[in-house]
Amino acid sequence: MNIEKISKQVDFIKEIDKIKYIQRKTKLFNSNRTENDAEHSWHLAMMTIVLSDHADEPIDVLKVLKMVLIHDIVEIDAGDTFIYDSNKNHNNTDEELIAAKRIFGLLPKQQAEEFIAIWEEFEAGKTKESKFAKSMDRFEPLLQNTSNNGGTWTEFGIDYSKVFEKKKVIKEGSKSIWNYAENLINESVEKGILKK
Amino acid sequence: MNIEKISKQVDFIKEIDKIKYIQRKTKLFNSNRTENDAEHSWHLAMMTIVLSDHADEPIDVLKVLKMVLIHDIVEIDAGDTFIYDSNKNHNNTDEELIAAKRIFGLLPKQQAEEFIAIWEEFEAGKTKESKFAKSMDRFEPLLQNTSNNGGTWTEFGIDYSKVFEKKKVIKEGSKSIWNYAENLINESVEKGILKK
Repeated sequence: MNIEKISKQVDFIKEIDKIKYIQRKTKLFNSNRTENDAEHSWHLAMMTIVLSDHADEPIDVLKVLKMVLIHDIVEIDAGDTFIYDSNKNHNNTDEELIAAKRIFGLLPKQQAEEFIAIWEEFEAGKTKESKFAKSMDRFEPLLQNTSNNGGTWTEFGIDYSKVFEKKKVIKEGSKSIWNYAENLINESVEKGILKK
Repeated sequence: MNIEKISKQVDFIKEIDKIKYIQRKTKLFNSNRTENDAEHSWHLAMMTIVLSDHADEPIDVLKVLKMVLIHDIVEIDAGDTFIYDSNKNHNNTDEELIAAKRIFGLLPKQQAEEFIAIWEEFEAGKTKESKFAKSMDRFEPLLQNTSNNGGTWTEFGIDYSKVFEKKKVIKEGSKSIWNYAENLINESVEKGILKK
């Protein structure tokens, strides 16, 4: 019985290895090498552990960790969508839902349902945990771009208003982190690595 | 006050990016590409979430996640040591302790102490959480090597007795997972990808 359950879980564990081949647009810190989804998810998990005290309300850290660790698994089938791509809706596309059902569906039934629910909660962004998880997801590339002389902002010609529009979501999870992030954005304009 | 605290935490978040350049000996699943420590740590975190119900005693999953997410950060300074390297003690070298103090020491004092304590608890392997974390750390490369036609066992001429010696640690965290793992090891001998 246990062997059968572990066997399904191992199938899932093997399948999600493919996330290591999904390249994001953003680069590592002080680097020209793009980051993959496994590295990105690990970093968000570390940021969650380190920064969770700055959440506006007390949060269930374990739940946020689950969210950030699994949030990009759907990209194994659906691919990474660049956040500033105006032709494609970044969140909750039909393609991603189909991917979630296929990949999490490899797990034993109850666990599959739990993972799909956590992923959907993250995508919807209505709860305090999903708001904090999304703060982390927006904060990491901001730190990376400022360490890379503008990074994807420069590379793809993204200006202040677009950056501000996407990054202000950080405020929903933590006013303190948003305060820090807003300073970074303003400094980037002053330094000339982000155009107003 | 908060800005000062976040500023220290961001210094740490930037520093640990370097883990993405630390290459392990083991390869990704069905692959010739070596895995880096960030990818490895993400995978152990996912395995922990998926497999935690198989722990022999109920475990604090959040604590195990913290352990597996941070366990290799010291390798930024100390480098990766191959588990079958008989010339070097894999665990708790002086070099790793110095690394832990330097890197976790970038965090605000209380948090630095917490992270060092969690890392030390993992290294000591005496608590049920650290035993389960170590099970995950030994189980992942077993799954990878069996998917890679023997992987590092073949590449470095590691035989059954050495593999059994290192992998039996899995039993300390979960008898069910060890049962599954032992079957895999025996099957590997039968298939000729692990020499007896």
